[in-house]
Amino acid sequence: MSQFRRDPITGRWIIVDITEPKKPEDFELNPQTKKGGMCPFCAGNENMTPPEVESVRYNDSKLNTPGWSVRVVPNKFPALTMDGDLIKRAVGVYDMSKGVGAHEVIIETTDHYRDMADLTQNEIRDVIFKYRSRSLDLEKDPRIKYILIFKNHGGPAGASLEHTHTQLVALPIVPKRVIEELTGATHYFGYRERCVFCDMIAQESHDKLRVICENEHFIAFCPFVPRFAFETWIVPKTHNQNFKAIDDKRIDDMAKILKDVLLRIKKVLKDPPYNFIIHTAPLRDGINEQFHWHLEIMPKLTSVAGFEWGSGFYINPTSPELAAKCLREAK
Amino acid sequence: MSQFRRDPITGRWIIVDITEPKKPEDFELNPQTKKGGMCPFCAGNENMTPPEVESVRYNDSKLNTPGWSVRVVPNKFPALTMDGDLIKRAVGVYDMSKGVGAHEVIIETTDHYRDMADLTQNEIRDVIFKYRSRSLDLEKDPRIKYILIFKNHGGPAGASLEHTHTQLVALPIVPKRVIEELTGATHYFGYRERCVFCDMIAQESHDKLRVICENEHFIAFCPFVPRFAFETWIVPKTHNQNFKAIDDKRIDDMAKILKDVLLRIKKVLKDPPYNFIIHTAPLRDGINEQFHWHLEIMPKLTSVAGFEWGSGFYINPTSPELAAKCLREAK
Repeated sequence: MSQFRRDPITGRWIIVDITEPKKPEDFELNPQTKKGGMCPFCAGNENMTPPEVESVRYNDSKLNTPGWSVRVVPNKFPALTMDGDLIKRAVGVYDMSKGVGAHEVIIETTDHYRDMADLTQNEIRDVIFKYRSRSLDLEKDPRIKYILIFKNHGGPAGASLEHTHTQLVALPIVPKRVIEELTGATHYFGYRERCVFCDMIAQESHDKLRVICENEHFIAFCPFVPRFAFETWIVPKTHNQNFKAIDDKRIDDMAKILKDVLLRIKKVLKDPPYNFIIHTAPLRDGINEQFHWHLEIMPKLTSVAGFEWGSGFYINPTSPELAAKCLREAK
Repeated sequence: MSQFRRDPITGRWIIVDITEPKKPEDFELNPQTKKGGMCPFCAGNENMTPPEVESVRYNDSKLNTPGWSVRVVPNKFPALTMDGDLIKRAVGVYDMSKGVGAHEVIIETTDHYRDMADLTQNEIRDVIFKYRSRSLDLEKDPRIKYILIFKNHGGPAGASLEHTHTQLVALPIVPKRVIEELTGATHYFGYRERCVFCDMIAQESHDKLRVICENEHFIAFCPFVPRFAFETWIVPKTHNQNFKAIDDKRIDDMAKILKDVLLRIKKVLKDPPYNFIIHTAPLRDGINEQFHWHLEIMPKLTSVAGFEWGSGFYINPTSPELAAKCLREAK
């Protein structure tokens, strides 16, 4: 069982495991993604995961048996569960509550040896369809305020299983980072009555210095202020605050540009560890003109050290102009 | 040469290297702390660093020769230099300025094979004296608004050199994380007219659940809302917002408790990578009652993954109550 705890100084929340905590001897130094062995995400091992929530299946195959190409299952070791209510309470100067929420895994293919960049555009499209359908389904629960979709690729980026997958966490609290982005975008909008992301797209399209590639509905560029070397954003050209509202045609284009960008990163940086995160508006906030959903890819080429932890400043050894040039010219 | 760039959405700053950027082939996967070989921090190699700024020396030895026990030098590859003015300017929707500031290294001993936990209390005291004297010296420059003192220990925590050292960065901007902490502490103070850190000390001293050890002037505990497993804070018992104002007697007690805590962490977690950071008030802000300086130690036992990057939520597998118990009982 897990607990939410809120820092009384910064308002930062943590999720802490209360019932099965890790002891000093349980930590591995240099944790690596598990390779080989029995993989719970491979076809034939469907009984190694909790029962599937959704899947893409062919030939009338039965749930929880082979015959699928994308499979969504609850995380076997969830950070949160949908069991009960939040029940916020104080512990002296501190705040805490029960860890309510959902934690799901989208297994992107049956093939253990292909990563997302190796999937076909149609396979990636099917995965993005699941991102959308799970978002639409989970938002029906009134306790859920935010849905975070993210991918960890490679051990240093936090992936514990090698078989390619995406994670979805549904939260009863709008997270701090999301509030920061919304507040900043709202502030910008208040000053200029324009969306900051739309303004960025206009400037990047004009300058071309940091653009990697684009198609009808999406543009990929290295942002002017990247925290990490080779950080890349994929932004829809049409303004919309909610990822969940994406239409089928745009899912096609998103699959196309995501595959293109991931392949370029894989080639130029030799399959680096990376995280990607879909940044979207909270579920029930009525935010509209100010925010613009997008996907951020963060290769993990350097360690985050004391300076970054202490300041929130990031030292980036590679300018986004150089990074974009390397990625643009790769093919 | 480096540039400051400010994210128009979140207000986050980065420092980006413009003149000698890292190219794709320059990144090492699994970077490790360099072991053996010529070490620029060992006695006899003083000419491998820029000329020293301060040192603790014996027997009338000359600057930049052996005969020292603590040595402060400018970083050979500084993130920032004191050359010129900030010159803030806009680039379309973005903001940037020249990377002005200081970046120094405090070499804590001549001995390549001892880390900070292995130093004597008196040796650590001399190091802390240098933290204070460098802070007092650098604040004379009116361009400097914040001084960040931090330590990276071990490759995964971002240390590139094995020889034990602390870093100091003097910044012309108060960093985002510091503003967050100040804002939160000020908000708490506005509501209760008490310092949130003083309240925490009172609660932790009473509960004892999360306390590791204490002496006359300092208490060490695992905070109720730790981002990282075994995160430990060392907090002065007397309210003061500025580390730089620490007196000699308190430096003695700080050296004592810092050695004690670092030894416990080294023993219980088998010399883990860690960062520590001194959290102190900005130089010229007139903040007084609201903030309380302290030192935060963050062992790096797990990777920061997509969930943390996307949400600012941290998943911590070890409760601070268990962590404190393990550290308290170690000896």
